[in-house]
Amino acid sequence: MTLIDETTALDRAEHLTTLGASLRRALDGSFSAERAAARNAFPSANMLMDPQLDVDAARRWTLGRLRELSESGFGSAGVPARAGAHADPLAAVVTFEMLAYGDMSVTIKSGVQFGLFGGAVANLGTAWHHDTFLPDITSMKLLGGFAMTELGHGSDVASLETEIVYDPETREYVVNSPTQGAAKAYIGNAAVDGTMAAVFGQLKVDGEGHGVHTILVPIRDDQGRDLPGVTTGDQGHKGGLLGVDNGTISFDHVRVPRRMLLDRYGGVDEHGTYRSPICDPNRRFFTMLGTLVRGRVCISAAGGIGARRALSIALRHGLTRRQFPASGRPEGVLLLDYLTYQRRLLPKVARAYALGFAQNDLTAALVHVQGGGHHTERDQRELETRAAGLKAMTTWFANEAVQEAREACGGAGYLSENRLTTLRQDLDIFATFEGDNTVLMHLVAKGLLTHYAQAWNALDRTGVVHETTRVVGEALLERSAANVAFERLANSVRRRPEETAMVDRGWHALMFEERARHSLESLARRMRAARKEAGDGFEAFNRLGPHAQFAARAHLEQVTLAAFVEGIAQCHDDDARAVLEQVCSLYAMESIHKDRAWFVEHHRISATRSKTLVEQIDTLCRHLRPHALALVEGMGIPAPWLSAAIADAGSYHPEGA
Amino acid sequence: MTLIDETTALDRAEHLTTLGASLRRALDGSFSAERAAARNAFPSANMLMDPQLDVDAARRWTLGRLRELSESGFGSAGVPARAGAHADPLAAVVTFEMLAYGDMSVTIKSGVQFGLFGGAVANLGTAWHHDTFLPDITSMKLLGGFAMTELGHGSDVASLETEIVYDPETREYVVNSPTQGAAKAYIGNAAVDGTMAAVFGQLKVDGEGHGVHTILVPIRDDQGRDLPGVTTGDQGHKGGLLGVDNGTISFDHVRVPRRMLLDRYGGVDEHGTYRSPICDPNRRFFTMLGTLVRGRVCISAAGGIGARRALSIALRHGLTRRQFPASGRPEGVLLLDYLTYQRRLLPKVARAYALGFAQNDLTAALVHVQGGGHHTERDQRELETRAAGLKAMTTWFANEAVQEAREACGGAGYLSENRLTTLRQDLDIFATFEGDNTVLMHLVAKGLLTHYAQAWNALDRTGVVHETTRVVGEALLERSAANVAFERLANSVRRRPEETAMVDRGWHALMFEERARHSLESLARRMRAARKEAGDGFEAFNRLGPHAQFAARAHLEQVTLAAFVEGIAQCHDDDARAVLEQVCSLYAMESIHKDRAWFVEHHRISATRSKTLVEQIDTLCRHLRPHALALVEGMGIPAPWLSAAIADAGSYHPEGA
Repeated sequence: MTLIDETTALDRAEHLTTLGASLRRALDGSFSAERAAARNAFPSANMLMDPQLDVDAARRWTLGRLRELSESGFGSAGVPARAGAHADPLAAVVTFEMLAYGDMSVTIKSGVQFGLFGGAVANLGTAWHHDTFLPDITSMKLLGGFAMTELGHGSDVASLETEIVYDPETREYVVNSPTQGAAKAYIGNAAVDGTMAAVFGQLKVDGEGHGVHTILVPIRDDQGRDLPGVTTGDQGHKGGLLGVDNGTISFDHVRVPRRMLLDRYGGVDEHGTYRSPICDPNRRFFTMLGTLVRGRVCISAAGGIGARRALSIALRHGLTRRQFPASGRPEGVLLLDYLTYQRRLLPKVARAYALGFAQNDLTAALVHVQGGGHHTERDQRELETRAAGLKAMTTWFANEAVQEAREACGGAGYLSENRLTTLRQDLDIFATFEGDNTVLMHLVAKGLLTHYAQAWNALDRTGVVHETTRVVGEALLERSAANVAFERLANSVRRRPEETAMVDRGWHALMFEERARHSLESLARRMRAARKEAGDGFEAFNRLGPHAQFAARAHLEQVTLAAFVEGIAQCHDDDARAVLEQVCSLYAMESIHKDRAWFVEHHRISATRSKTLVEQIDTLCRHLRPHALALVEGMGIPAPWLSAAIADAGSYHPEGA
Repeated sequence: MTLIDETTALDRAEHLTTLGASLRRALDGSFSAERAAARNAFPSANMLMDPQLDVDAARRWTLGRLRELSESGFGSAGVPARAGAHADPLAAVVTFEMLAYGDMSVTIKSGVQFGLFGGAVANLGTAWHHDTFLPDITSMKLLGGFAMTELGHGSDVASLETEIVYDPETREYVVNSPTQGAAKAYIGNAAVDGTMAAVFGQLKVDGEGHGVHTILVPIRDDQGRDLPGVTTGDQGHKGGLLGVDNGTISFDHVRVPRRMLLDRYGGVDEHGTYRSPICDPNRRFFTMLGTLVRGRVCISAAGGIGARRALSIALRHGLTRRQFPASGRPEGVLLLDYLTYQRRLLPKVARAYALGFAQNDLTAALVHVQGGGHHTERDQRELETRAAGLKAMTTWFANEAVQEAREACGGAGYLSENRLTTLRQDLDIFATFEGDNTVLMHLVAKGLLTHYAQAWNALDRTGVVHETTRVVGEALLERSAANVAFERLANSVRRRPEETAMVDRGWHALMFEERARHSLESLARRMRAARKEAGDGFEAFNRLGPHAQFAARAHLEQVTLAAFVEGIAQCHDDDARAVLEQVCSLYAMESIHKDRAWFVEHHRISATRSKTLVEQIDTLCRHLRPHALALVEGMGIPAPWLSAAIADAGSYHPEGA
């Protein structure tokens, strides 16, 4: 990918409004130059798959399109080409975002090939693997799968059943699927295209288990036939992403040379002895998984782009389509002039901006950790927690947003030519893969309790609940400049929240902080009480599952608002900043409004004040209505790339403006 | 359709539990015998379309399957075969429900051919139309479209642009599409199969407009070629329902003989004079539209069945699939033992039951109005309002429920073989067609204000707000035995709501009633104030749009709870009744919980009490967990008909129970 500084060619072709261009720069944030350059360089012909293609044709088109994009530099960015080569995490994320402007099958196929398969070799392998395989992976000569998930074990990686047993006689590993449930499942590139897989399984050496490791296993010959002992299956038609060839792989005592084990974090030496730079198996496991964090960052980014595409289509539709005539509007009311329509879409636009700023911060954190400079283990853990949480928040939101956009466009939204239904179908699984969202939110809650306050395990030991939860509260946010500013905002109104104007950012900050802090404190407290009572760790955590989900969400909302506030501070265009302040308020108020029961129940907001939230939201919608087009432009999808008939002003509805 | 009394053959084949069979009888309600007979008679081979079919193949399969079902008696039920023949509305609804157990494209194609096209001829035509066309319609020799919606006018039927102009010279009508936006759009049977359409347009006689009327227009010859002046278009691939051939139709001064106008409510006599049995054009318009209410009843019914199918699949999956091991559960925890999983699905099961009982009442009201006996105009209006509202509530819910089921089944839920994604894609448009849900909810709010209290127009005249709103409150519910019982329940706790146990049905009734009554009263009040202030009818209603949506929903929740309570009263099996009481409580508490902010803001529930709602819901989920299988059986979909691999215990996950 060539990063050029010429950012206006496409802008000019788009005829962006001044405000729209400024909003776009603001939302692109610190990566504005890279993103603008990528937009300019992206080969934008043939962007979206014909929705009529059947499974075989969809797969062929997807593979061809990915080869084409990869040759143009929008593929393997971020995967090192050989041992010692630098892999730029920013290029990886920006490339993935660009792919998400187009077809999601291509995007995910890219993620499978470069992010997951290539990423496993790069991150878990050592020099021999890098030199031997990376050139063919980046050139797409060698296509491979990332064989982690099993039929019987989706989210529970530690319990994988696949066995990788070292045979000292032959100096080989024997890879085996001992049960039907041990079959690898949902593996991209497994049904047709892949000739190799990075297989996760339980390593056993001399009868001793060393936990989950990863080994490269050839699965097909050049003619596409399964290799001896390997059985692949085609999982066929899916709810979307038809271009990705997901399949199953089973192994019947498949023998693989010793050096095929990706042994950066553990393997067998020439004497048949297991060696690992990390002694603690648990830490080793999480270190290995931790290297894969980039996948979640990318999926989150792509989900956010998907939401913006859908909202862009629906808003452009609402700006041309008229409905019932009304007094003073004999030609019919523009859809976007209906408050109900505004309320459906504008708060979602606000959230799309908010999550965009949070995504920028997440990308920056990834660059910090994987960019080659110094970082601490705490940085890594924080990145993992935030990536897990933001991936869940963004992909859930993306599905909601696309669905709302589809419904807002009525019957037209249901026609494939308007691109919303395919997008919705493709995004659906984003809520499940790269970690099931519900499980990820549990991880966030656990992470908050564990890493930030040592509370999870310490509670029983110390018994000093108050002290512990105070620590939890203080440690809730990472120590960054943005968070210090956020804390200052919250403090500014702490003594008189009910007297503060509801559009005051300090009030939003305080409410977000109180929600996050209190829900985590009470989770810690209830966890401790429940454990004592039930004497059953599972039941205790199980009962508190919904509470843990809430606490995780509350935390992520705070992270998101803090990112938005910081993003506005970085915007130096007065008009754009003024609009962004309103967008931020709309995001914050909608978030508070959705949880207003919680705020009232916990005496953070009076019932009287709570009732008036909705009027404030209505007012913000009215104020933002004139900026609708600029807000769409700011979301960053060039209009022609939407490829939706209804988003093309005037082409479809002659009565439109 | 043969209604036989032998209801046990299929039950035996299904090995239903005793409790499951009782729950099914209870939920089938007054129509238990008819539904059981229909299940037994339904030709259940080849039920679901292969999701891999392309558009052409999907359409061919759908047409073939509908012909096959129609020959077995599951097609034209409810459409009279000739003039004077009785059309049984109950048979129509039960047949439609049965079709919805199978493929939704077939279901909707049936609705287009028999319900809409056949229904237009039957309800808007007179004896000549009946004798001439109904035999060929019911035998599927004549396939037709229901050409109401136009590109430029979806929900706004009164503004249709298509012209039907009488030419006294030739005694013909000239049908014309004056603009591009006047093209008929999204019309089922228009792209390929239909040779005729019931076309809605503005009737003009001798220069005078008489509003929207309907005329039969031949559109294709036997070879499938457009007839002169007719241009059909294929809207191609859609977000779902691939088997339904939706298309556009434009008319360029197409001449049609005089008798082709469906003239039950208005037409031109042999002297060229316009005659109508209904003088008021507005009343005529609504009377014509009112005859089409059965379509909404059917769509609502089918949506409810779709939700039950998805929930059945996800619950059966949750009863076999295990995840992370935990203390005391080394083999992994059954998904359905996770509280988070229970909370995802069981409240939706409860709502599926609740809406099922409400649907039973709606069907009974349809039978009352269209069954040939005496009914008042008020009965008709109430039926229309309830059909509009329940269609919106049920189809929105169906999409939510299927989506939640898909996500709960993880990656497996995304495979087409598990049937959830296709179902989701097919149901998507249910929220839009037969009336856009948001528009329908506005209709409900308007209906509540207009018909039940004459408030809408009277407000400005009387100025006696308190008096008016008292009337509104009292008239909120139709006067039925069920509603009298409901009122008695609410009254039983009115003086001490905060001291009443939260599982007390009286408390639920009171809360539901208060929510419905107060939101409608305040809507009426705010409408009046806003009108005075703004002097602009549109802006007034526009600003109150979200409030109107809330009031409509609150009303429908009350109607639904009342139906549930009455349904339980009709259940004479003690075990089933005990479970249904808990299911009803779960539905009621979840509904209150979702709106708890409103209840607290309006001082109906204290903040302290509100906080404890969630514990009650958790407890109900735990109590219902052991009855999960019976609850699935009660929802009425025979297990083999689910056709989902993951719903088939043990077949897919060897580690399953």
